[in-house]
Amino acid sequence: MQRALLSSCPRAGIRPRRPRLPAYRQLHALTPLRHSAPSAGATISQTIFSGIQPTGIPHLGNYLGALRKWIFLQRDSPPDTNLIFCLVDLHALTLPQAPAQLLQWKRESLATLLAIGLDPGRCTVFEQSRVPAHTELMWLLSCGASMGMLNRMTQWKSKSGEAVKEATSVPALKLGLFSYPVLQAADILVHSATHVPVGEDQVQHLELTRTLAASFNHHYGPTFPIPQTILSPAKRIMSLRHPTTKMSKSAPDPKSRILLTDSPSTIQSKLASAVTDSIGGITYSPAERPGVSNLIEIYAHMSDRSDFDAVAAEFQDAGMNMKGLKEKVGEAVVVGLEPVRRVYERVVGESGYLDEIARKGAEKAKESAEGTLERVKRAVGLL
Amino acid sequence: MQRALLSSCPRAGIRPRRPRLPAYRQLHALTPLRHSAPSAGATISQTIFSGIQPTGIPHLGNYLGALRKWIFLQRDSPPDTNLIFCLVDLHALTLPQAPAQLLQWKRESLATLLAIGLDPGRCTVFEQSRVPAHTELMWLLSCGASMGMLNRMTQWKSKSGEAVKEATSVPALKLGLFSYPVLQAADILVHSATHVPVGEDQVQHLELTRTLAASFNHHYGPTFPIPQTILSPAKRIMSLRHPTTKMSKSAPDPKSRILLTDSPSTIQSKLASAVTDSIGGITYSPAERPGVSNLIEIYAHMSDRSDFDAVAAEFQDAGMNMKGLKEKVGEAVVVGLEPVRRVYERVVGESGYLDEIARKGAEKAKESAEGTLERVKRAVGLL
Repeated sequence: MQRALLSSCPRAGIRPRRPRLPAYRQLHALTPLRHSAPSAGATISQTIFSGIQPTGIPHLGNYLGALRKWIFLQRDSPPDTNLIFCLVDLHALTLPQAPAQLLQWKRESLATLLAIGLDPGRCTVFEQSRVPAHTELMWLLSCGASMGMLNRMTQWKSKSGEAVKEATSVPALKLGLFSYPVLQAADILVHSATHVPVGEDQVQHLELTRTLAASFNHHYGPTFPIPQTILSPAKRIMSLRHPTTKMSKSAPDPKSRILLTDSPSTIQSKLASAVTDSIGGITYSPAERPGVSNLIEIYAHMSDRSDFDAVAAEFQDAGMNMKGLKEKVGEAVVVGLEPVRRVYERVVGESGYLDEIARKGAEKAKESAEGTLERVKRAVGLL
Repeated sequence: MQRALLSSCPRAGIRPRRPRLPAYRQLHALTPLRHSAPSAGATISQTIFSGIQPTGIPHLGNYLGALRKWIFLQRDSPPDTNLIFCLVDLHALTLPQAPAQLLQWKRESLATLLAIGLDPGRCTVFEQSRVPAHTELMWLLSCGASMGMLNRMTQWKSKSGEAVKEATSVPALKLGLFSYPVLQAADILVHSATHVPVGEDQVQHLELTRTLAASFNHHYGPTFPIPQTILSPAKRIMSLRHPTTKMSKSAPDPKSRILLTDSPSTIQSKLASAVTDSIGGITYSPAERPGVSNLIEIYAHMSDRSDFDAVAAEFQDAGMNMKGLKEKVGEAVVVGLEPVRRVYERVVGESGYLDEIARKGAEKAKESAEGTLERVKRAVGLL
């Protein structure tokens, strides 16, 4: 059906294009890092680290906003680039979690990573809690991280601000919520990561990581490469019900989000009920027409495009009405998610297989972390 | 020479007695703990955990105040009591350390533990940084430890108070200095310790440990035994130069302290120059005669006695002057430390032997920690 639309479109058409890869391009514009430890002057191959919390089956916003970047990195990085992708289950514990749910989410998240196409042969895909070096390094960095730095973290300030507003007290907040940016720094540094793709909300934490690494190197000699930020433009997919807020797992209306495992009919039905507007025609204007613009963006992303105005113009030129637009978007999403859903459904029930993936991933990650941790321990006088 | 004094003493005499063992007696007055995890209702054998920072060769105050208690525990505990003694090298990092010095101190401290008579076959003697489960559990406990609890820790309050006074700022203090009581809690709980001998300055931290354990058990089901405090009366050995302050490694005058490795002539010379007073006779009165009373206490402890007044009376009755008292104290210290010094000097240079002890100790400690950590991970939903 997508083809039909294209062929009826006289001008540029909505044709398949080579995916745009801002993260990838930015990455490859960077010169490979040199640093002088452990073998002075040697060119170190790039190591890209990224983490995601296990919050169960991701929605379309998670997929387009973060997970698909991992696939692009895997596809497009040179063979000697280490790709390390971490399910940060320890971070999930900074907020209360029902244990059975966390365990289920971990399994679902791991299955998702395989389903979207991460290849455990090419990348290191692992669960953080299986690699003790992360918390070991966290402690060592804790001894160099000042209270002031952590107090300035926006996310802590917002949490403690909320606590004041809600008349609960800041002293009741947990240490983990205050100290986790140091665990994040350890996550990155323990693998001697050179590059970290982050969203804008994580830039400050990456800056803390760089500060801790630089300060450690200053005190103890060159030990960590200073990781560079790969900042990619945020893809903010909005709620289908309240298109001025982000698509979110925690929104009460399940029709506000599309899950990666939704069936074709569920996807079409959620899109059919997506909130738009009664302005005539199809135009791209996020401020005035958030619902329609969100649909245009979803369509564009699923077609690996980012020229939203042109996409809108193509629909408009094709004489599409709102119902037709929703159907086209639905088709693009169904087609795009089909292979993901197929693999997901095959692997999510195979506990033995997932355990094996997790076990092997942990082995690779331990190996990756071992060298750095030993270097750090020697530097501070523990070994 | 001690014998000569005794035979010239017509009454009770200073005769060898069975050592008094407050820690031991208090311990054995306790009923073995029962707790319902992992095998409900089973009687769990006692596990005693204690830690010491690696600060190099201990002085007499460290030895009499803490280390000798470990020897008494080893000698007098039932065979099924687990004895776990930890060189807490990670805690040493909360304050700046020169790496080479820390490494040397670690070696000296391990050699000391062997020299005073700890048997690595009977006890688990290990370096904290070799057992990652400590920091792993620390993170998990961090997610349940409130900021308020940690802010109330006296040692943190005193550190942040000092920072204010010295016009350095509290924000410059390191996270490790704030969060280390949670690492202490993990040190204890990861071995499912049932009993912890502590000095009075550590009672508050033990209370925090109990609170964290109880709160974890409440949220996730019975997981940790609640460790009991074995509070033994502090043996405060005072400086030989300023007998109103504690004997301390950091005091500028090395004559203020006796090291476990001091030669007989050094020991005698340090005692000969010990500050006393010009009041006549020998009496025990810490408030009025701190110097003399400190010497009496040292003598009494080295002879495994605690009846300081009686000891003083015996010296007085024997017509001893100050010079004679100092010599007698010196003899007692020389005789008491002789076997310690002999073993210390034999093992401290044998890096291979010490490494082997540290490696085997770490293996035992890992085994001890493994079961608890796995139980904790299962409880919170990580496994």
